[in-house]
Amino acid sequence: MDGNILIINGTILTMAEPQADLLVDGFILIKDNRIAAIGSMADLPDNARDRGPAQLIDAVNSLVMPGLINTHTHAAMTLFRGLADDLPLMNWLNDYIFPAEAAHVNPEMVFWCTKLTAAEMIRSGTTTCADGYFHEAAAAEAFLESGLRAVAAQGVIDFPAPGVADPTKNIATAANFIKSWQDRSDRIIPAVFAHAPYTCSAATLQGAKELAREHGVPFFIHVAETREEGRQMQELHKTTPVHYLDSLGVLDRDTVCVHCIWLDREDIELLAKSGAGVATCVASNMKLGAGIAPITEMIASGITVSLGTDSCASNNRLDLFHEMGLCAKLHKVHHHDPTVLPARQALQMATINGAAVLGLADKIGSLSPGKCADIIIVDLEQPHLVPFYNPDLLVYAANGGDVVSAIINGRLVMHERRILTFDVKEAMARVRKLSRPFQ
Amino acid sequence: MDGNILIINGTILTMAEPQADLLVDGFILIKDNRIAAIGSMADLPDNARDRGPAQLIDAVNSLVMPGLINTHTHAAMTLFRGLADDLPLMNWLNDYIFPAEAAHVNPEMVFWCTKLTAAEMIRSGTTTCADGYFHEAAAAEAFLESGLRAVAAQGVIDFPAPGVADPTKNIATAANFIKSWQDRSDRIIPAVFAHAPYTCSAATLQGAKELAREHGVPFFIHVAETREEGRQMQELHKTTPVHYLDSLGVLDRDTVCVHCIWLDREDIELLAKSGAGVATCVASNMKLGAGIAPITEMIASGITVSLGTDSCASNNRLDLFHEMGLCAKLHKVHHHDPTVLPARQALQMATINGAAVLGLADKIGSLSPGKCADIIIVDLEQPHLVPFYNPDLLVYAANGGDVVSAIINGRLVMHERRILTFDVKEAMARVRKLSRPFQ
Repeated sequence: MDGNILIINGTILTMAEPQADLLVDGFILIKDNRIAAIGSMADLPDNARDRGPAQLIDAVNSLVMPGLINTHTHAAMTLFRGLADDLPLMNWLNDYIFPAEAAHVNPEMVFWCTKLTAAEMIRSGTTTCADGYFHEAAAAEAFLESGLRAVAAQGVIDFPAPGVADPTKNIATAANFIKSWQDRSDRIIPAVFAHAPYTCSAATLQGAKELAREHGVPFFIHVAETREEGRQMQELHKTTPVHYLDSLGVLDRDTVCVHCIWLDREDIELLAKSGAGVATCVASNMKLGAGIAPITEMIASGITVSLGTDSCASNNRLDLFHEMGLCAKLHKVHHHDPTVLPARQALQMATINGAAVLGLADKIGSLSPGKCADIIIVDLEQPHLVPFYNPDLLVYAANGGDVVSAIINGRLVMHERRILTFDVKEAMARVRKLSRPFQ
Repeated sequence: MDGNILIINGTILTMAEPQADLLVDGFILIKDNRIAAIGSMADLPDNARDRGPAQLIDAVNSLVMPGLINTHTHAAMTLFRGLADDLPLMNWLNDYIFPAEAAHVNPEMVFWCTKLTAAEMIRSGTTTCADGYFHEAAAAEAFLESGLRAVAAQGVIDFPAPGVADPTKNIATAANFIKSWQDRSDRIIPAVFAHAPYTCSAATLQGAKELAREHGVPFFIHVAETREEGRQMQELHKTTPVHYLDSLGVLDRDTVCVHCIWLDREDIELLAKSGAGVATCVASNMKLGAGIAPITEMIASGITVSLGTDSCASNNRLDLFHEMGLCAKLHKVHHHDPTVLPARQALQMATINGAAVLGLADKIGSLSPGKCADIIIVDLEQPHLVPFYNPDLLVYAANGGDVVSAIINGRLVMHERRILTFDVKEAMARVRKLSRPFQ
């Protein structure tokens, strides 16, 4: 399937420059897994088509842009989408999610739910995701088969967890996972996800970070998601979650802090100094009533902020177009200022910032020659996308369902909304079957 | 085209009861423009199919529900979708929207933009909208041709406006419009829209309401959208916008107050006592940074709150599935409480509450025998809608693009996402042409 692809007649949003990089009536030539050339149709060499690209895609009336990057999800939890909405957080976790996980999470469940999740992500324009869960080898296998690019992180927590009955083996389990996946595919990057500062001991946090450093892979952690977490950390450690993690030496450029809602001014400065990236999960934070992250303050301090969907248990969808619009709108109303978080910034968060946060800025996130070919095509020939004045439309009017084609690592993974890499109907049927005990 | 339709094998959400009205594996029989019967497939008379419905729709793997009701938009403003985003409100209005309206709004523009807007609404599950603009006869004509049900309100304002160069004729213009449309179609209800308490004199507000009363049609008005409006009203009238309108006698059961963001406790009580309905426009209020309406307080006081999209100039989309999810999530995070505004309430706002606010509760908003057949069908056979535990999925995971069929007043208006009533490509081409001066 991998090979040369030529996209013609498209309006191309490269995201390669901070502004003004819309190329009207352009082409992109893909060779193997890389972008070989981008330019105006007027400059397309006469013989480019004759030399026979394996695939020719006519992107007339369409917008061509970098695939979106989801920096936080728990793919397998799609099984719990809508299982228990609108409940108090602790009730939701203790009465529904934790018991469901304890009884139903196994490698088969993780594999099929991750496959279904991959279909949902590809069909809504995501080409790279950062996942964190248990039995992560099964998730990595599903991502590999799906065609998606993924940073797949094995979960580490100081409680018995699916596949890690003995928590003293949590770091060793993650180490085995990383070793067995580190060289399997250039699309799958194994990593480690320490659950949170209040569910992992200092030794576990430092051990997990040490493992990540040893293998040069990202380290993820949920930080400051709820006000209650801040209270707990004050009680236990007399400090904030961010200060605590900094004192343990686990914050650096290869750390991704997820949520970061309840931060004070010093936390923000500390995060900025550490170089850690942030994944904000707007829909999930809103739906759980967790709070509004100080995104504009973090960005102003130089922190790289990206977008995550969180899992379908709390979102309940994985559509980054939805997250971009939500993020822009929520922070405007929060500040009573329509100039806050402009559309362009939301687009950056979902593309180049996502790439930077995951340590993949040299490979993905924008369209330029030499980068990996992770590209999506949005159909503009639809009533809700007319007229088209500028790419703000993608943030405020489009949704994931408008993406018609996706190319990941030079491979056409979706065309005319049909996923070409695996049997989506089978994944839906398998997950429906897995959902029966909850019906 | 009108005639008998039989929908079979669907999961039916009737919205006829406050809770628990999901009918699994059901049928709906439509005769002329009404619902004739709803029931389980097991109870479908053997000869129901033989007697030959004009159309048989198999809704297997689909959810059948009432068409959504958008209680506030300005359809023709779709021309300005994305023309100028992320600007300070006064800059946006004075430098972009007002000059664009002054130069480009004419009956032809209103007709074609309204037609495109109708396509967008039908394709995202809306079957009834309340519109307010100028040259409203052209909008009504477009709605009539589109197949949509509409409350079409002629705008009244004390400034020169498109089609009403002399503002002293604003009420007379609205009167002529109402008279000429009152008996043209049972789908198009003419009405009057007084712009706002700060742009209409007391005499204009009372004259417009008097006109609405005389013809028994709804009266719309923007109320308390910005904090600045409250300041102006204090300066001019030493009171709040709601108190002012109440003192003029224009608030009653047939009045729809749009926005209602900056209300105090007394305003809410006054609104509740008056019986006036409210249209909240969540996306628009967020995007303009206008503020967060006290929806939960209004609902608790007994006010009927419905959902509006506002126009594409400020939203920039007309998808009520998007509005339902946004409304539920915004109010949860605003109150730091995930139990606030549950999915069911958002569904009510977009269906039965919308019908009640527009005075159409006996005709639309829920599915039961005798009501008009305004029905949409949502395709559940998609990765992002699996698994399906309950109808919360519609609020938190679905979007307008998941609607595959729409029946309005007993007529199949969209099937398999194709609009059957008019040429959507022509409407897109016309609006693209109209957008050229702004490109």
